[in-house]
Formats: sequence, C-alpha cells, structure tokens
Amino acid sequence: MARRSSASRRKEEKEEIAGADESAVAVAQHPAWSPQSRVVVESIYPEIDGGRYPVKRVVGDLFEVWADIFRDGHDVLGAALLYRTADEPQWQRAAMTHRDNDRWSGTFRLARNSRYFYTIEAWTDVFASWRRDVSKKVEAGQKVELELAEGRQILAAAARAGGAGARAIRAALERVTAAASPKEQAATLLDEGLHRVMAEHGPREDVSTHFQTFELIVDRPRAACAAWYEMFQRSQGTDPTRSATFDDCIKRLPAIHDLGFDVVYLVPVHPIGRVNRKGRNNTLQAGPEDPGSPYAIGSREGGHDAIHSDLGTLADFARFVKSCRELGMEVALDFAIQCAPDHPWVTEHPEWFSFRPDGTIKYAENPPKKYEDIVNVNFYGPHREALWRALRDVVLLWVERGVKIFRVDNPHTKPIPFWEWLIREVQTRHPDVIFLSEAFTRPKMMKALAKAGFTQSYTYFTWRNFKQEIVDYLTELTQSLCREYFRPNFFPNTPDILPPILQKGGPPAFKIRLTLAATLSSVYGIYNGFELCEGTAIPGKEEYASSEKYEYKVWDWDRPGNIKPFVAAINRIRRENPALQEFLNLTFWRADNDNVLFYSKMTADRRNMVFVAVNLDPFEPHDVTLWFPIGEIGLGDADAFEAEELLTGTNHLWRGSPQHIRLDPQDSPVAIFRLAVWKHVDYRTPNP
Amino acid sequence: MARRSSASRRKEEKEEIAGADESAVAVAQHPAWSPQSRVVVESIYPEIDGGRYPVKRVVGDLFEVWADIFRDGHDVLGAALLYRTADEPQWQRAAMTHRDNDRWSGTFRLARNSRYFYTIEAWTDVFASWRRDVSKKVEAGQKVELELAEGRQILAAAARAGGAGARAIRAALERVTAAASPKEQAATLLDEGLHRVMAEHGPREDVSTHFQTFELIVDRPRAACAAWYEMFQRSQGTDPTRSATFDDCIKRLPAIHDLGFDVVYLVPVHPIGRVNRKGRNNTLQAGPEDPGSPYAIGSREGGHDAIHSDLGTLADFARFVKSCRELGMEVALDFAIQCAPDHPWVTEHPEWFSFRPDGTIKYAENPPKKYEDIVNVNFYGPHREALWRALRDVVLLWVERGVKIFRVDNPHTKPIPFWEWLIREVQTRHPDVIFLSEAFTRPKMMKALAKAGFTQSYTYFTWRNFKQEIVDYLTELTQSLCREYFRPNFFPNTPDILPPILQKGGPPAFKIRLTLAATLSSVYGIYNGFELCEGTAIPGKEEYASSEKYEYKVWDWDRPGNIKPFVAAINRIRRENPALQEFLNLTFWRADNDNVLFYSKMTADRRNMVFVAVNLDPFEPHDVTLWFPIGEIGLGDADAFEAEELLTGTNHLWRGSPQHIRLDPQDSPVAIFRLAVWKHVDYRTPNP
Repeated sequence: MARRSSASRRKEEKEEIAGADESAVAVAQHPAWSPQSRVVVESIYPEIDGGRYPVKRVVGDLFEVWADIFRDGHDVLGAALLYRTADEPQWQRAAMTHRDNDRWSGTFRLARNSRYFYTIEAWTDVFASWRRDVSKKVEAGQKVELELAEGRQILAAAARAGGAGARAIRAALERVTAAASPKEQAATLLDEGLHRVMAEHGPREDVSTHFQTFELIVDRPRAACAAWYEMFQRSQGTDPTRSATFDDCIKRLPAIHDLGFDVVYLVPVHPIGRVNRKGRNNTLQAGPEDPGSPYAIGSREGGHDAIHSDLGTLADFARFVKSCRELGMEVALDFAIQCAPDHPWVTEHPEWFSFRPDGTIKYAENPPKKYEDIVNVNFYGPHREALWRALRDVVLLWVERGVKIFRVDNPHTKPIPFWEWLIREVQTRHPDVIFLSEAFTRPKMMKALAKAGFTQSYTYFTWRNFKQEIVDYLTELTQSLCREYFRPNFFPNTPDILPPILQKGGPPAFKIRLTLAATLSSVYGIYNGFELCEGTAIPGKEEYASSEKYEYKVWDWDRPGNIKPFVAAINRIRRENPALQEFLNLTFWRADNDNVLFYSKMTADRRNMVFVAVNLDPFEPHDVTLWFPIGEIGLGDADAFEAEELLTGTNHLWRGSPQHIRLDPQDSPVAIFRLAVWKHVDYRTPNP
Repeated sequence: MARRSSASRRKEEKEEIAGADESAVAVAQHPAWSPQSRVVVESIYPEIDGGRYPVKRVVGDLFEVWADIFRDGHDVLGAALLYRTADEPQWQRAAMTHRDNDRWSGTFRLARNSRYFYTIEAWTDVFASWRRDVSKKVEAGQKVELELAEGRQILAAAARAGGAGARAIRAALERVTAAASPKEQAATLLDEGLHRVMAEHGPREDVSTHFQTFELIVDRPRAACAAWYEMFQRSQGTDPTRSATFDDCIKRLPAIHDLGFDVVYLVPVHPIGRVNRKGRNNTLQAGPEDPGSPYAIGSREGGHDAIHSDLGTLADFARFVKSCRELGMEVALDFAIQCAPDHPWVTEHPEWFSFRPDGTIKYAENPPKKYEDIVNVNFYGPHREALWRALRDVVLLWVERGVKIFRVDNPHTKPIPFWEWLIREVQTRHPDVIFLSEAFTRPKMMKALAKAGFTQSYTYFTWRNFKQEIVDYLTELTQSLCREYFRPNFFPNTPDILPPILQKGGPPAFKIRLTLAATLSSVYGIYNGFELCEGTAIPGKEEYASSEKYEYKVWDWDRPGNIKPFVAAINRIRRENPALQEFLNLTFWRADNDNVLFYSKMTADRRNMVFVAVNLDPFEPHDVTLWFPIGEIGLGDADAFEAEELLTGTNHLWRGSPQHIRLDPQDSPVAIFRLAVWKHVDYRTPNP
C-alpha cells in the first residue's frame, strides 16, 4: 500500500467529494453508452456491506454465490462466476444457472488457503436467443426461412471467430449447408448438441461485469473447527513459590491431549513489567515476590519479542511448540499490545506513546478506573507507520517461531483500520495464520472487528444460560448476515470471567456449559481449571478469587470433583461426528420443557445426525418430551429409528416423533443421540 | 459525461479488474495509515444497493438519515450529516445525535426540487472526551490537577486556531486562568455552556468521512400526490367517423376538472404509421378508414416531434396545454419509443434500426407474437450515441412545449442504462419533469426501472383484489426498502387491461377499485370510460372489446350507470384530507370479515385521521366489526370519538374499539370515516 501524507490524502478526499458533482461514483463507473452495463447484476449474496469487507470460508468448502441477473426484453442470458486467488492474475469461471424469479446461482470449490476474489459476468446469449425464438415460431407453424439464414449467419461468424469450439461449429455449419430442406436445416440448427457448443463458444453480446470485485478469505479448516485449552503457563508446575517453566508445561501436554484438545493457548509469555506491578487479587502494591500480570508486558529483560526468563528460553519455547505439534496440537499465543511502563519501547520509542503536561507518560485508564501497570501506544501519533510496522513484525516474528494462532487481547480498544491492515499484512505472507478477537463489547464493534478480518471472535455465549436467549443468539449467529464473516469461538470461562452459573451450579453446570459450547459451536475453548470445576469467585463479582493472573498457583489436576472424563468424552464425540465439526448446520427442535434445549447437527448428506438435549437447570432433574423431526430425516410416524446415546453408549429403538426422557443433573444433565435409520430390507432386492 | 470508445472502456475495465489485486476497491479508498477511517460509519439508511442508486423524496420533506457510528475505545464522538444540491459546491451540515446501540440519526429539510448528495462525517470530540473523563474522576474524588492542565491546553489550542468560536473560548480560557482554586478551574472548564461552544468549535480528531456519497432525487410534490385521468384523445368528440381534435379535448376539460383530477394524460399524439397499420380489434389488415394504433408512431407526416394532423396543429396542442393549466391541471404525454415502419427515422437513420439477411427491416416481435406495425430502434447499434441523444431531444422538445410529465411505454423492453442516462439528462436541465414507468413485468425489473430513476411506476395493484393479497402487496410497497425509491401509481384499468373484477362486478366493482386506488396510494389514475363503468371485454381476455386503440369511438360521457358523482366525491375527499395525500402512512387494522379491508391514513400530528372500510365483494353485502385503534389515537375504552362518514356526510358518536357496520355494494361498498376526538372541557381551565 502506497504511503502518502495524511495532508495530501485529505486534500484528495476533499476534491473527491467536491468532484462527486458528476454524480454517484457508481454511475461514473457505468458509462451509459457502453453495452457493458446492459445486463443488470445485483443483490449479490454473499457480500458484506456492499463489498466493503470480505466473506469467510475454509479450504474445501463449496462456495455458492447468488445474484439477480436480468436485462430488458426477452433475450436469453448467460452468466458466470469469475474467481481467482490473490496471487493468480487469471480469472477462472464457473457457470451460473437461473433458478427462479431472475435469481441465478453458481458454485466453485475452494481449493487453497488464500484470499480469493470473485465477481459476476453476464451476457446475452445470441444463439440461444435466436434458437428459443425460432423454436417457438416452428411450434406455431410459422415460416422460418429468413430465421434459418440468420442462424447460419450467427454460426458462420462464430466459426470465423475461431477458438475452442470452432471445429464443431464449422462441422455443424457444413451440415446445415448440405441440408436438403428447410426442415432438415432447422433440425440441424436447433440440435441440442449444437446448442451446448454454442452456449460455451458462441457469440456473447452485452457482456456486463459487475462493477465490484468481492473478497473472500479462505482459512485452513482448523479456523472453523477446534477445541481450545487455555493454559496459564506459570501455574502448570508444582512449586507454589515460583513460576512453572515451559518444561513443566510440556509435562502437562499429554494430559491435555488426552482431554481431546487441538489448540493449547498461552497467555502472554513475555517479560512482565516491574513498574507499578499489580499485587495479588489486582491490588495496587505488589510484594517483592509477586509475579505481576502477564498482560503488563515488557521490562528491562525485553518486550513483545522476548520470553519471560521464569518460563525459560526461546529454545525451551521451541521445544514446547514442537511437543504440542507431536501430539497433533497447535500453540496459540496471546497478542496484547499494551506495554508496562518499563517496556523497552518506552525508552527506545517515546514517540509511540502519549505524555502528559508534566512530562509523565499517560497510563491506561477507563475513568474512574486506572491501569497504572500499563501504558498504551498512540496509534495515530506522528510516527504511527513505524509503530504499526513494529507491531506487525512482532506477529511475524512469532509466526517464524512456529505460532500460527493469535488470540488478540482487547482489540476493540485499538483502531479497526489497524487490524484490517495488520491481518492483511500477516495473512498475505502467511495465509494460515488465525486471529481470535477477544472483544467482549458492544455488538456492532464485535461485528466490525470480524468484518475487518478477525478469523474468530469471542461471543456473548459466556452469559447466555437460558433457552430462549440461547436460541435467539444462535439464530442470529447462524441465520443472519454475520454468519458470512463472524466465526464464534465459545468460551464458558476465561481468566477474567467466571460467570454466575459456574459459581453456583457445581459440576452439573460445568457439564452443561461445556456441552453447549462444544456442540452448539464447532470452535470452542475452556480456560484451565474448568475441568476441575473451579468456581470460587471474589464475592459479588464475576472474577476468580486469588486469580493466577496476579500470583503463582499450583493446581491438583486430578482433584476430586473434576469432570475430566466428561470433557474427554465430549471432545471424542466431536471428533467422531462430522456433523459437530460444522457450525451453520445447527437447528433447534421442539422440547416441551423450558428448561431443556434440544437441537441437532446433521451433515448435508444425513450420514451423520446428532441430536443434543441439555437440561439447562443445574439443580433439578427435568422430564421432557423431545420432538424428533422424523419427516426431515425421511421417516414416517410408525418407522423405527435407532438413537445411540453417545455419553453412556446406551441404545434406544424409537418410533414416532415425541420421545420422553429425563435429564438428572446429578447423573448427566445432557444426552447426545446419534440417530441411525435402519434400512428396510426388501427380499426382492438381493444384497441391499 | 465524457464519451469514450467502448473498446478503450473495455480495456480499462479489464485493467481495473486485474489491478484489483491490491484488494477490495473500498480498502484502497481507506488507506489504513490515515486517521480518516478510524471512526466507523456504516449501515447507512436510507441508501439503495450500497449507494448505487438514488433515494427519492419530495420538496418539503424532512429527510432523515441513520447510521452506525463508533470507534475503538471510549472517546466521545460527534457526527454530522453533510448535504448539498447538485449545483452547490459547498456542503451544508446537520448535526447527528446518538440514539441507541451506536445508532445515530440526523435530519434536514429538503428545500429544492433538485438532485441532492449526502454523506456522513464523524469525529472524536477531544474536549467532550476530556470533559467526560474528568467529570468521572471528580465524582470519584480523584485529584485532577494534571487533567485541568490538559483541559487548558485543549482550550488554548482551540483559541489559537481561531474561527467562529475563538472569542468565547478565549474568554473561558481567561476565566480559567484567573480562577482562584482547582475547584473553581474545574467548574469553569466543565461548564455546560463551554461544552456547547466546544462541541461546535472545539478540536476534532480522526475526522472520518464515509467513503461514499449518496444521491437523493427530490421531486416536486405532484410526483407524490396526484390523480390522473387518461384521455384517449381521438375519442373525446362526437363524430364516430373521425378523430376528435384538441379542440374537442379542450371542451372535455371542465368535466374532467369537475371529477377532481390533477393530471390529464394523453396517449401518443404523433402521426400514426400507414405501413402494416392494425385494423379494428388488433386485426392484421386495416381498412382504409381505420385510424391505427397511436403506439405505431411516425409516418410521412412526421415522427415523435410531430402532431397527428387529425388532432390539430402544434398551436392547438399549445392551447390544450394552456387550457389544462388554467383549470389547475397538468398534461402528461406518452413517450413510446417504437416506430412505425414508415417513421421518418427509418429512412433518415437506417443505422438506428436492425435489418434482416434479405435486407428487410426487423419488426418487433415476442415469438410467436409479431407486431408488424412497429419496428424497434437498436439501442446498441454503432450509432447509438446519436440515437440516444435524439430520443433525449424528443423529450426535451415536449418539455419546451409545456409537458412536464411523461408516461413511458414499455420501458422494460429498453435498456435500463438508457433510462438512467435519459432521466438524468432531462432532470439535470428540468428537475420538475416526472417519468412514469409503464412496466407490467417481473418484480425485479420493475424495481430496477424505479432505481434507475423513474419517478413513478405502474404496479400489480391492477390485479390485487382480495384482502390478504392487498395487505401483502401494500406492506411490501410501504415497509420494504422499495419504499425509498419505488413510488406507485395505482391504475385500476388501462387501455390494455380490463381486469376480470371490472368485467364482472358492475358499478360496485368500479367503486371498490377506485376507492382502493385513490386511498391506498397517494398517486392514482383511471383510464377514460372507467367513470362510465365500461366493462365489455373480448371474451376470455382482459382486453376491451372494440378498443379505441384501433378505431374511432364516441362516448356518451353522461350515460346511465356512470359513477361520476362518486369519482368526484373520492377526489374531493382526497383533496380535503392531507392524510390521503401521503403514501407511507398506511396502516391496516383488524376487520372481522375476510371480505372487508380496513385501513387508516393519519398525518404525523394526528390532526387528520381517515379510516377506510372497503367491502371487496362487489356482489353481496357484508357485516363487519371494525376494530378502531383507539389506544393509538390516545383514547381509552370508554372515551367517545366522532366518526364522520365522508361519502354520505353522516356522523357517528362511537365508544370503544369494535364498531359494527354493514357495507352493501348496491348502496355503497365503501365507508370513509374521518375521526375527531372531542376535547375534554375542564371548567377549571378557562377557555380550553
């Protein structure tokens, strides 16, 4: 992207606005004289905000595009979806088909982890229009000699034009010329095979390309299906007086792998500031032994590019990354832009920060709250370009060190254009990098960050506990336009958020929330301690008491009351059932009890059908009638189907839609049924 | 608009697409470095297709614009709606206000009949952000000395910057400097008056203008409220063997004026072709005395710029226009682009037409139907620019001759870019010109023509007879996005369409359809003969028998069975009730009978409230309970309201929502109530 001074840019923008006199920009792009706007191509789906932001998909998806396409009069149209990846100059083409009411669609398979572009081209199919008209006249018994001559002219011009179809067209032309009668000529010209050749190679008029090119981010599959485990690395050891090391963390990996997670996410691994360091439970004065919050990044030891010496060395980190990889897991790193007051950048690049009238640096604050242990960079200071590049280079450095997933801390307090730029900069070089937006804020900002390019987003799921609010929220996520760009990552807890249901509901609540997170969304995660049902909060708050954010902590990873087998089972069920690896295939079904949520995920081919019933009340058992959509899966009222409950391994042979079950939170608050339809064996058909 | 060869244009477009590598066009317009995209401005309403097409309003309207506006962090924002007319280089500004959930709105009054442009600017309000933060700190009892120094700095910079508010700002600065204590300083700096001055004149950062400029067509009021009378001019006389003249038509005007119409619309007034002229009832062979269809335009006598000699001279036409004007009515002319084979253009400009392999001209057709009496111009022939200009000049010529309204015949068989160009060309010179699109075709094409610029559009109303289909269609027209650009003109009949209900239902049907057209829509029209309840069709068709399209006709304008007093009453009621002069104020209410439609139109100030009940069944009387929305008009269940039936002049004093009435089609199938709420007179308040 060319760099220009903001002053010159401002001037140009002003002129642009003044020059808008010649009217709407879009109109200027459509000179009326040209036949290249004759065919209307509009109401394209999917596209975000008039093409301003990219749509998201993953490698392997079949990408489907819809548009209204029409022109004046009655001529026959053709249309194609044009697409290419960012590094290919040549457009590829996929035919579009008219569906109904001037709505067309086309598809292509997404083969690469890359940004794609797509647009639509439409045209008048000269030969097909001629053919349709002549066919009607022939049917009506009208004379068509002159029309046949016109058909020959179209063919002759197409043959002269050469190209791929020219040989077939010439052959047809010879057959027409040799035809003994008008009737025979007509038969040759109206031949279905010739029609197909001409549709592909015949003349096209009014070729109109939509005035916009739309962008599509195609991520690797793990962007859309993963189970995250958030590991607070300094608490993974056994000595409560010191930080655990990467070696301690490596020892923990087999257990995390056994729980079935794909991504191990580490909070910031960098040196922690000493100036204004926070003490236990977020107190203002740290004791000499207090380790401070890892989100106050940077000290004399180093900044965002360094490793905290308590954790080990870069080599230790590399071994950690390798150990994860060997277990089929991937590392995600926290990217938190704020700096401790003693971050090296503060002295090396004071121009990246803001200072107050008395010469002191400006601390972070959200009045009347103050965050004395961190300072924020000034994204729009006079040296912003160097700052932005330095931040980008931090990410690129960790990518080189083997990290391909970044959980971004508080992105909503940094400018959206910065994220749009940074994510593009990184993904242009490394399209496999995934960014998770940790924004718990107002809805439009959360969506704006996703539009700007974040691969995944934290969500309001953390606070959605009851039936109607879950249905409403998931309906928004799966059915509204945000499904095209906002990919949720459902966390039931985070180091900052211990929601009331987990404080009050005990192990049943943890099972409920885990099941919801893991089966409603194809991407989800837990923060360590969840599997131990840790639920002790600072009274009256949603925060963990004695949070490991501010102190050393040692966990007993096998302590009584843990739900590790349940976690492992849920992750196994996710792995074994492709339907749970998709997100948009979610459907809610009727359950005659407001405490019970009942929903399904099915693969498009119906080979995998998973139905989940969750008792949302962690305290009491509930009886419920579940209404299975038997018509939807091709069954009649009296047909039998097998429902295998995947947590217990028990099987049911059920008939009819309504089925009664009881969900007791002390036993299991959830039931996950895999449905199987037994094939009807007909002895008249051998070996069915 | 600059003229460029289509080849060079094609090349540029190709390069444009290839150059899209640097990614989405919109992104290129938003250099990430610049603070000028920091504030997000999105989801603007109204706008059509991402700003591609203009919104429509009329002079005097208050134009309201909504947008989502937000940025990172917590700073206080400001926003303004920028607007100007096409001929003013300077933007005017209207403040926008935050409503809820990051949604802002602003309004401005549309003073001129012109095209307008509008966009949105938003910024960080530096002083307001400072003030909000300091206020919170003061409330929390924190020390704010340094903050006050920052406040003084902001003020000092604003004072130095000069401008309109500098004097007030300098005065405030002096008061702050003179303040005896930090507390007094704070009071001065946080003063509400200073806040207002600074909001207007203080420093703004991150000033971000939305990357698009939106267009708005502001028509004159008659575009949105008018009653049309379609006059088939050759049938306005008394001699069945010859065409009526403009003088005969002038004689008819007082009667049409008495019926209450605003617009007199004439079918084409030009010479009619003699080659392949159609005979009576659209037969292929015309007799020597047959006048032919006025839609087969042009003969040796002249083309689109000429007057048919049977009607009179240009001077006669001018007198006709003047006579209309004297009665407060306006002339609308048909603009039908097709030509008769003997139109002068066919010989003068053969390059504007298409020819067949045998050298004959290509007639219009929609196979297997043929229209031998007309030929179509070729809009994309090699001389298209001259052709388009000639067509534009035809319109401009009639504008000079006093015609400001054009009903455009079959626009959907001509290219949409042509219309977008032509309407802009004409309205740039004459913004008061109105174009009505006569497209009865597929829904997306009808909307596309409206988006391209047509002021009004014919609709499917002509075929919507029953309750649910009327509610559905009117809900689409008044509640979906098309309300912003598609302005309906409801015709119950046209020379081409005599719908079944008018063939079967007799005078009650005519009263029903007239009432619906005139009270559902603020723009409506009838084709002459409607007031006489003419309903004789060609058997099995929706066409008039012995249509005056193909023969001379003489009407008895006072023949028995006419509903002229009813037509006059309806038009009088429209004139006397401002609520009926709006369109989007339509609301349907509950009526306990599927044969009865019940709806209201109310002015925003509720000074005029009209409720219409229509028995949609022309054959039988129906009893119905109408549920008046008394809560909506500020009444309790027991409060009385007056309902004046405007057709009969009878009054009711009603209490409560449900009111029972009977609508007998033989008497009156409709009732139109004007509601009045009697003021409660309280003797404690003298002279209420």
